[in-house]
Amino acid sequence: KVIWTVLVTILGYASSLPVGDESLCTAEDLAKYKIIFTGKWSQIAFPKQYPLYRPPAQWSSLLGVTHSSDYSMWKKNEYASNGVRDFAEKGEAWVLMKEIEEAGEKIQSVHGIFSAPAISSGTGQTSTELDVHPRHPLVSFVVRIVPSPDWFVGIDSLNLCEGDHWMDEVSVDLFPYDAGTDSGFTFSSPNFATIPQDTVTEITCSSPSHPANSFYYPKLKILPPIAQVTMVKIKKSQLGLSAPIINLPAKTNEIIDSVS
Amino acid sequence: KVIWTVLVTILGYASSLPVGDESLCTAEDLAKYKIIFTGKWSQIAFPKQYPLYRPPAQWSSLLGVTHSSDYSMWKKNEYASNGVRDFAEKGEAWVLMKEIEEAGEKIQSVHGIFSAPAISSGTGQTSTELDVHPRHPLVSFVVRIVPSPDWFVGIDSLNLCEGDHWMDEVSVDLFPYDAGTDSGFTFSSPNFATIPQDTVTEITCSSPSHPANSFYYPKLKILPPIAQVTMVKIKKSQLGLSAPIINLPAKTNEIIDSVS
Repeated sequence: KVIWTVLVTILGYASSLPVGDESLCTAEDLAKYKIIFTGKWSQIAFPKQYPLYRPPAQWSSLLGVTHSSDYSMWKKNEYASNGVRDFAEKGEAWVLMKEIEEAGEKIQSVHGIFSAPAISSGTGQTSTELDVHPRHPLVSFVVRIVPSPDWFVGIDSLNLCEGDHWMDEVSVDLFPYDAGTDSGFTFSSPNFATIPQDTVTEITCSSPSHPANSFYYPKLKILPPIAQVTMVKIKKSQLGLSAPIINLPAKTNEIIDSVS
Repeated sequence: KVIWTVLVTILGYASSLPVGDESLCTAEDLAKYKIIFTGKWSQIAFPKQYPLYRPPAQWSSLLGVTHSSDYSMWKKNEYASNGVRDFAEKGEAWVLMKEIEEAGEKIQSVHGIFSAPAISSGTGQTSTELDVHPRHPLVSFVVRIVPSPDWFVGIDSLNLCEGDHWMDEVSVDLFPYDAGTDSGFTFSSPNFATIPQDTVTEITCSSPSHPANSFYYPKLKILPPIAQVTMVKIKKSQLGLSAPIINLPAKTNEIIDSVS
């Protein structure tokens, strides 16, 4: 039995993957995935200005969508929607949910919304399930970096369909993005709207090229991944009228140091 | 055409509803609901010590489960599980998710987990969808009150099945509960573990009977509801392989004053 496993661990993932929906998806009807988000924002990996309290380093709820190439939740070097701005700045999901629902109604480009609970520390995990469909095989999501001006991690239009089958497992390293709507430079900068709005940009260890930036590490070549996401296909045999829920992986051994 | 609508607006809801699963559910196989959570924690309704910053009044992610009467997420006057404690104190969902998954595996008492994004202000809405099944017609969920020692709102084992049919709509007012694990008296009290742990208790305008308590309003007879939840059955005609998502209601006009 051949197990089809694809492990994608690409730096600067969002910019380098091709748009996923160019080839037709002829896979079986529907596939169900477990999606597991792992925060890797530790003080050891990111010592500079690491937020310890009010609030300590943590992750917002995860808000995601399964869709066709007619919809885009966010895209590098393009302007963030109002919904993505509200979510990246405040973790407020309502406007983004409405945008997604409108895209679902008007152009049938959305299959479903999914979300997973927030994580109250920089390292830790959260998870949920999602459905993809041959006409809606793409996955996008955002998670706000808390605290931060308008920084988030996420994926943009990852295609879970590979011709006539669904991928068994995909894992992607995540790096920070700036939504381009708030000009704060550090995790705890006060709100300061960027006018006119800038596009979504990746934050690297050298860009923005300013020593005050919280991710500016001039001695590094690349930042370590600040988070990771894994999507695992749930086997048909595990589904049923009363679907037994599959196991989450054991929590990583990283120290969770939450100051509430 | 008769539309079956039940509006439940019961004070002290969790204590007064009968356990839901006592009568057999003979409804059609599966029902899908939209669940909408509305925060009503405004400074006007709850002026005392209303949290304005670091953090301002807000709501955690909503974490819920559909289940049979063999499982209980939380119950008034009983001890909170470790998972409910972590969630009520810190908004950390991991242990609670593992508890739910174990109950699903061991005694098949769980149909599924659902979650909805956090709300970054005391008033505002969030929503998601859930499935119920004749063998798992009960809904429970928790939302942490942020900031607070270990306070939450939620529902415990609400039965969406009514004999041979599923209810079309249920709406419930929500009031604050104390998880019994932290002895803080006010929204921003420092952590102070309750040893030995106390049971889950409802917080009212007169209990705990101490002027320092954030919900102590001696001139009121009852607290106004601090939140509300509505579950609306999604019609079969709205389902399909690519389910169009139903509309969320328009957002309430309450002012959202979030200090991020």
